[in-house]
Amino acid sequence: MKADLLIKGGTILTLNDRMEVLEDHCLVIESGKIIQICPFAKLKCDPAETIDASGCLVMPGMINTHSHLPMTYFRGLADDLPLDTWLNKYIWPLEAKLIDHDFVFDASVHGAAEMIHSGITLTNDMYFQMSAIADACSLAGLRVIVAEAMIDSKPGGDTAIESIGRKVLELREKYADNPLVDFSLAPHAIYTCSEATLRRSAEEAVKHGLLLHMHLSETKSERESCLHTHLKSPVQYLRDLGVLEARCVFAHGVWVDEVEMAMLASAHASIALCTDSNLKLASGIAPIKAYREKGVRLSLATDGVASNNNLDLLAEMDFTAKLHKVINHDPAFLPAEELVRMATIEAARALGKGDELGSLEEGKAADLLVLNLQELEAQPLYNPYSHLVYALNSHSIRDVVIAGSIVMRSHKLVNVNETELISKAQSYKARILAEQ
Amino acid sequence: MKADLLIKGGTILTLNDRMEVLEDHCLVIESGKIIQICPFAKLKCDPAETIDASGCLVMPGMINTHSHLPMTYFRGLADDLPLDTWLNKYIWPLEAKLIDHDFVFDASVHGAAEMIHSGITLTNDMYFQMSAIADACSLAGLRVIVAEAMIDSKPGGDTAIESIGRKVLELREKYADNPLVDFSLAPHAIYTCSEATLRRSAEEAVKHGLLLHMHLSETKSERESCLHTHLKSPVQYLRDLGVLEARCVFAHGVWVDEVEMAMLASAHASIALCTDSNLKLASGIAPIKAYREKGVRLSLATDGVASNNNLDLLAEMDFTAKLHKVINHDPAFLPAEELVRMATIEAARALGKGDELGSLEEGKAADLLVLNLQELEAQPLYNPYSHLVYALNSHSIRDVVIAGSIVMRSHKLVNVNETELISKAQSYKARILAEQ
Repeated sequence: MKADLLIKGGTILTLNDRMEVLEDHCLVIESGKIIQICPFAKLKCDPAETIDASGCLVMPGMINTHSHLPMTYFRGLADDLPLDTWLNKYIWPLEAKLIDHDFVFDASVHGAAEMIHSGITLTNDMYFQMSAIADACSLAGLRVIVAEAMIDSKPGGDTAIESIGRKVLELREKYADNPLVDFSLAPHAIYTCSEATLRRSAEEAVKHGLLLHMHLSETKSERESCLHTHLKSPVQYLRDLGVLEARCVFAHGVWVDEVEMAMLASAHASIALCTDSNLKLASGIAPIKAYREKGVRLSLATDGVASNNNLDLLAEMDFTAKLHKVINHDPAFLPAEELVRMATIEAARALGKGDELGSLEEGKAADLLVLNLQELEAQPLYNPYSHLVYALNSHSIRDVVIAGSIVMRSHKLVNVNETELISKAQSYKARILAEQ
Repeated sequence: MKADLLIKGGTILTLNDRMEVLEDHCLVIESGKIIQICPFAKLKCDPAETIDASGCLVMPGMINTHSHLPMTYFRGLADDLPLDTWLNKYIWPLEAKLIDHDFVFDASVHGAAEMIHSGITLTNDMYFQMSAIADACSLAGLRVIVAEAMIDSKPGGDTAIESIGRKVLELREKYADNPLVDFSLAPHAIYTCSEATLRRSAEEAVKHGLLLHMHLSETKSERESCLHTHLKSPVQYLRDLGVLEARCVFAHGVWVDEVEMAMLASAHASIALCTDSNLKLASGIAPIKAYREKGVRLSLATDGVASNNNLDLLAEMDFTAKLHKVINHDPAFLPAEELVRMATIEAARALGKGDELGSLEEGKAADLLVLNLQELEAQPLYNPYSHLVYALNSHSIRDVVIAGSIVMRSHKLVNVNETELISKAQSYKARILAEQ
């Protein structure tokens, strides 16, 4: 049998329905997909390339369900500030002055490259200049679902869904042959979108089979403002507008009550938990235990780097597990493998891609990581899920394969020059400081 | 001027009282100490060795104020379990069967090497077989304050303080020429020590100028048990026994009220915060805001690796800052530089070593880190404290100097063979699993 790529050896975390962990097995990859998983002894294959994963962990690539790649150049620009100062004095004025195609493209290449380093193989991104984000991710080799954030604050903004809806369909056509890029519709949030934008976004999303990606109840005041303005809880309001008819990924979901949870659970909706960001901005702690009890699908997300300040889902897993153990007074709550599921197969399902991504199974896309376990902090090893969540950091991620292509080999990115990206970031820093 | 070592270039975070940040400066090191800090242009020096820190961050080594190095081989052995199951079914039976000189030495070399990798240059350790821990740290090149945990559960245990006290004084004599090793007295905790042990430990600590290191109010039930048994709060009980006469480092301090805080603040006492461990075991959240308001000195600690599961103070800084922002509803609470102070100069002061360690100043010991900033996750850089706390992970730590000796150069440990340590950990794993 011919193959493009063979991964041999190592401990394979399949994340399949039986959560199988395989030793002495191989993954055979052809045309971007896993075509065979078999014991090494039974392998009959002539691969063009082989990754020796002996002594390593092999797992599905991690999926980041909410990000803002073009904010990468704002990393650490203005920390430890109240949210309104941070937004009104720093982030929004800078965005107004700086955001153009080149800024978005360059910052997104940097962020995409950084995500690959930290084991992310798909990100669900929302910002402006969506084709620049798509091109940046394609260059780095990162899979992306990209959306143009719709904000109605400008006069005539209500018509954005018409133009953006058309643009998304055109771009979907244009990128049809690019296996890395997909699109979604992103009404930014309840407080930034009109009823018409929300309703029309959902209609377009349902009509064209697009994911709907929006912010939901990140802060308490955001929820209270909805209650005050619309006399309804945020989820009730969205439901009444038909938004829950679409497949929805809601970022944050910190301030959601149990009635809203029941509505989310009975729809194709999920919450992208942004633990680091919510803590750093003191927005609150998402009610994960109640979400799970009500059957709401959960995944993990980094949010933008400006409020995190990295793009590291291993760190999100660690924070999320430990935080919710302590606030629920239960060290057995959210065991490590649950977090690994949230960062892989559950995330794929949340994005409507559970049949293609999120686990290592024959017929699925070859999006996977090889982690080096021959390091002090990885030894001894009793349980690989525990190590992923509690012990390792992103430096353990040695190789990254996306859609069958090796995009990072022995910690070095294949498609971009990291030294050039660093120089570019430093030039933009000078420009950003000059604008402040 | 002759010198053993020159650190040139980079951004130097001094952590001195003015929190000076120096560019284009050098650190001149001789006989284990920083003998000069000056602008590069004014340097007149003939160093035996030079570290080029251009493009890097130079900072004091981090100080871990509570650890159990010999537990390193239990990393991830039994996670996501209730505390009593974890202790009674796993940790304590294994300790009873396995702990001997060789186990403690080997596990401590592994842990010490791992700490150096993550930028720790001094750890305040408590376990059994204290001379094995001292020898292990000396081998790796890690500075250590080592203590034999005193537990009175055995018959005749009350006399432990007499024999351990003598032993500590003998060892202090024996290691007098070893700049890396110091000793403390460690009555394990209120619930494991008799009144006599606590009282006598404090007397010996005061008499011989030894630090007193113990666990304090890690869990709610531990506090309640003290209230029930002694009809006093834990700190009141210790104070009445004279324990607060000694310089005390109390690990955890999760369940401490404001009256107790006032007692701690007026003594030479400090709290070693173990955020990761307290969260993972769901012990609770230390009241950092109240501690600060009452003037209690705070430092950071990893605790043992079995409840963390790494030895990484950068991660502790990140967790601690973000957690306390959210629970205090204030993103401006605990800004990044406060965390860096807690991991360096405040920790040195907590351990009674503020005159020798914790900042980069002429006359102080040359314990320092060089962090590589030429990586994607470190760029752009607006504020080095923010990057240390929120953005970077331990992989950025490139070189580590302790007592003037380079113990890690370009990510490689100088004094130990990492491959051998990994093999050894794997052998012990087999033994540990066989004992379960």
